[in-house]
Amino acid sequence: MSIYAHNGYMTALPTLDPTTAQDCCEPTGRPALDAEQAKQKALVFKALADPNRLRLLSMVKAESSGESCVCDLTEPLGLGQPTVSHHLKILVDAGLLHREKRGTWAYYSLVPGALDDVAGILAKL
Amino acid sequence: MSIYAHNGYMTALPTLDPTTAQDCCEPTGRPALDAEQAKQKALVFKALADPNRLRLLSMVKAESSGESCVCDLTEPLGLGQPTVSHHLKILVDAGLLHREKRGTWAYYSLVPGALDDVAGILAKL
Repeated sequence: MSIYAHNGYMTALPTLDPTTAQDCCEPTGRPALDAEQAKQKALVFKALADPNRLRLLSMVKAESSGESCVCDLTEPLGLGQPTVSHHLKILVDAGLLHREKRGTWAYYSLVPGALDDVAGILAKL
Repeated sequence: MSIYAHNGYMTALPTLDPTTAQDCCEPTGRPALDAEQAKQKALVFKALADPNRLRLLSMVKAESSGESCVCDLTEPLGLGQPTVSHHLKILVDAGLLHREKRGTWAYYSLVPGALDDVAGILAKL
């Protein structure tokens, strides 16, 4: 045993067969997302996980001018303005909507590419 | 004033300019999603709005065999099996995962096209 312990063979790293080395890098049950990545990515789905917020995004997207005044978003939902503003803030915080205050009103537009980025999260899960 | 009120001009409908008529049919703030559609579509985002469920999807997707035993999904998350089964049920109910019971264990696989369908919801908002 002392012979093996001192001749270096026992501590030599095994030679990796190229095929085996390749296989060990294939996804095989290993989570592609760690806990922190998953926590970050879940945030945008939380923002989307509400019917009124989906309708707000839909309305802003459908606006031919590219932006919607908060004053035009309240009535179609049948909700009070504080509630609509609360939902809009969640969409802004999630990086889906851009908000610009001009005079009395705030105007909302889609952040370019944001919905595509969410689709990208799904593609790369 | 009575002259205007009786000669018909005041009550005549304005002639629509063709361009104006066309514009009125463009999407202009009208919600593309009604309340019921939005409620349905929000369900899948609710299923995705949790870090552990995103990790479960990620693990099932990464499995080279195409399916994962529930017995292999519990340990990486550091959660108890009842909790993991609860999350898996939500993903099955949302149409994202397929469940097959074989012997003692249940095996989960991605529903083909399901993640693409969610990306499609975002594209068509």
